[in-house]
Amino acid sequence: MEMWFSEVHTPDVKLSIRTNRQLYFGKSDFQDIAVLETQGFGKVLTLNGKILFSDADDFVYNEMVVHVPMAVHPNPKKVLILGGGDGGVAHILVQYPEIEQIDIVEPDEVLVEVCRTYFPEYSPGLDDERVTIYNQDGLRFLRSIEADYDLIINDATDPFGHTEGLFTKEFYGNAYRALKEDGIMVYQHGSTFFDEDESACRSMHRKAFQSFPISRVYQAHIPTGASGYRLFGFASKTYHPIGDFKADQWKARQLKTEYYTANLHVGAFMLPKYVEDILEEEEKKK
Amino acid sequence: MEMWFSEVHTPDVKLSIRTNRQLYFGKSDFQDIAVLETQGFGKVLTLNGKILFSDADDFVYNEMVVHVPMAVHPNPKKVLILGGGDGGVAHILVQYPEIEQIDIVEPDEVLVEVCRTYFPEYSPGLDDERVTIYNQDGLRFLRSIEADYDLIINDATDPFGHTEGLFTKEFYGNAYRALKEDGIMVYQHGSTFFDEDESACRSMHRKAFQSFPISRVYQAHIPTGASGYRLFGFASKTYHPIGDFKADQWKARQLKTEYYTANLHVGAFMLPKYVEDILEEEEKKK
Repeated sequence: MEMWFSEVHTPDVKLSIRTNRQLYFGKSDFQDIAVLETQGFGKVLTLNGKILFSDADDFVYNEMVVHVPMAVHPNPKKVLILGGGDGGVAHILVQYPEIEQIDIVEPDEVLVEVCRTYFPEYSPGLDDERVTIYNQDGLRFLRSIEADYDLIINDATDPFGHTEGLFTKEFYGNAYRALKEDGIMVYQHGSTFFDEDESACRSMHRKAFQSFPISRVYQAHIPTGASGYRLFGFASKTYHPIGDFKADQWKARQLKTEYYTANLHVGAFMLPKYVEDILEEEEKKK
Repeated sequence: MEMWFSEVHTPDVKLSIRTNRQLYFGKSDFQDIAVLETQGFGKVLTLNGKILFSDADDFVYNEMVVHVPMAVHPNPKKVLILGGGDGGVAHILVQYPEIEQIDIVEPDEVLVEVCRTYFPEYSPGLDDERVTIYNQDGLRFLRSIEADYDLIINDATDPFGHTEGLFTKEFYGNAYRALKEDGIMVYQHGSTFFDEDESACRSMHRKAFQSFPISRVYQAHIPTGASGYRLFGFASKTYHPIGDFKADQWKARQLKTEYYTANLHVGAFMLPKYVEDILEEEEKKK
C-alpha cells in the first residue's frame, strides 16, 4: 500500500512523508490527535492534521528552546512551560539539577496520555518529581501569577485555534508580569519565508519588542517546519542572549546534545538579511 | 486544473509545489530541462526532474557561494565557475569591480540558452564582458590548468550523473593545482539530514580535507533543498574563512543582499552538533 501524509505548508506547498500506518487517532475536547509511523521521520504526532513533532527532528526544537535561555540565566530555579504536554521540552530541562520546579500548563489531558503511550522517551519530562502538570488554559493560568518564574517557555504552536490567546498582546504583558525581575521568556516565532507566515511573525516580534526591554530572535533548521526554517523569540527583562551568555559554564556541564553547541548558540542569532529587515521594520512601529 | 510538481528528496519524502504551467521542456545531450511556473516559488528550473533553482530561493545559494569567499580573499582577479550555465552565480560575481576574468565551464549549451530566455534577470552574469563561457566538461577543462585561478566555484549539483567527475578525489587534486598559491575553492556540499545524503556529504568532506590545508564547512537555509538545509565547502590554500574574513572591507562596499550579511558570514560556520560530529569523523580517517 502507498500511503503518504502531507504537511500543508501553504495552500501551494506541501511536504509529503511516506507512512506505514496510523498508530493512533482520537478526538480530544481541543483537537484531533494522530500518531503516524513514517519512513524518513519515524513516529510523527499531528494535531488537526499538522505536525507537532517527529522522532527525526524534535531534538532541534527541544534543545533550542531550553539550552539557549539556560546558558544565559545565571540562576534559574522555577520554570513555566505553556503547552508542552508531550514532555519533549521538559525532558531536556530536567537535565539541569539547579531547577527546582517545572510547571507544565497543558489544557489537553488526552495529548499528555497519547504522548506517554507513544513517545515514552519523553516521559522523564512528565514524571520527574519537580514537574507538575496543570490541565488549564495557559493565558488564564498566567493571569494570576506575579514575579514568580525565572523562565517561561511558550511551547504553543499556533497563533490560531485554541492556543490563540498565547499570541495576543495581553499574553506578552501577562508573561512579563509573571516573570521575576530578571526573567526570560522564549517562544516559537514561526517562519518568515512564505508570505502566508510573515504577518504572524511580524506581529509576534512587534508585541514582544514593545513588552520587553530585550527582545532578540534566533533560528534553527527544522525539516518538518514550513520551508525547513524556524525562528524563536528571546524576550528578557535583564539578560542579553549574547552579552550574558555563559559559554564556558555551559560547556563545563558536558550535557549531551545533537543540535545545540555553545558555538551554535552565537550563530543562531546571526540572521539572514531578509529576516533582519522584517524584524527591524517592526521595531520602528509604535 | 490541479497540477503539482514533486521534488523527490528521498524515496520516502517529497516536497510538492502547485504548478500553473510548464513553460518549457526539452532534452539536451546531457539532461531533460524544464521550466515550470509555480505558486509559492515562482519560476522553477528542473534538470532530470530535480530542482536546480527557483525564483524564490536562488538568492540564498548564489549569495552564499560568492560573498563568503569574496569577503575573505584579499585580491581576487580571476574566477572559474564549474557549471553555472544559468548565470545565477556569475550575476553576483560581476558586482565586484576588482574581478578581471570570469570563466564559466558549462557543458550544456542548451541549458545556457534556456536560462537566457526564461531567467533574463541572470543574463548580466552571462553577458558581462569579463565572462567567457566554455561548453566543455569541467574536469577535462581543469586538467590543463596550473596555478591560474584565485577562486573556483564548483556549481555542479550532483555527485551522480554527468557531473559525477566534479566530485571525485581526482577533481579535488586538479582543483588544488588549478588554484594560485593563495586560491580558494567553494563547492556545494549537499545536506546531512537524510540518511540517503549523508555518505555523499561525508565523502566530499574527506576528499577536500585531505587535498587542502584549510577545509571548513558552512550552512544556509534553502527551502527547495532536501530538508531545507544546505552545506557548502570552503577549501583553501592560505586563507581561513573566519580568521581572514575582512568584515569591515566587505561592509564598506555596500552591496545590496537579501541573505548574506557580514554577521551571517560568521554564523554560517557555526554548525549543529550532529553535522560537526559527521565532519570530525571524516577528518580522522586516512
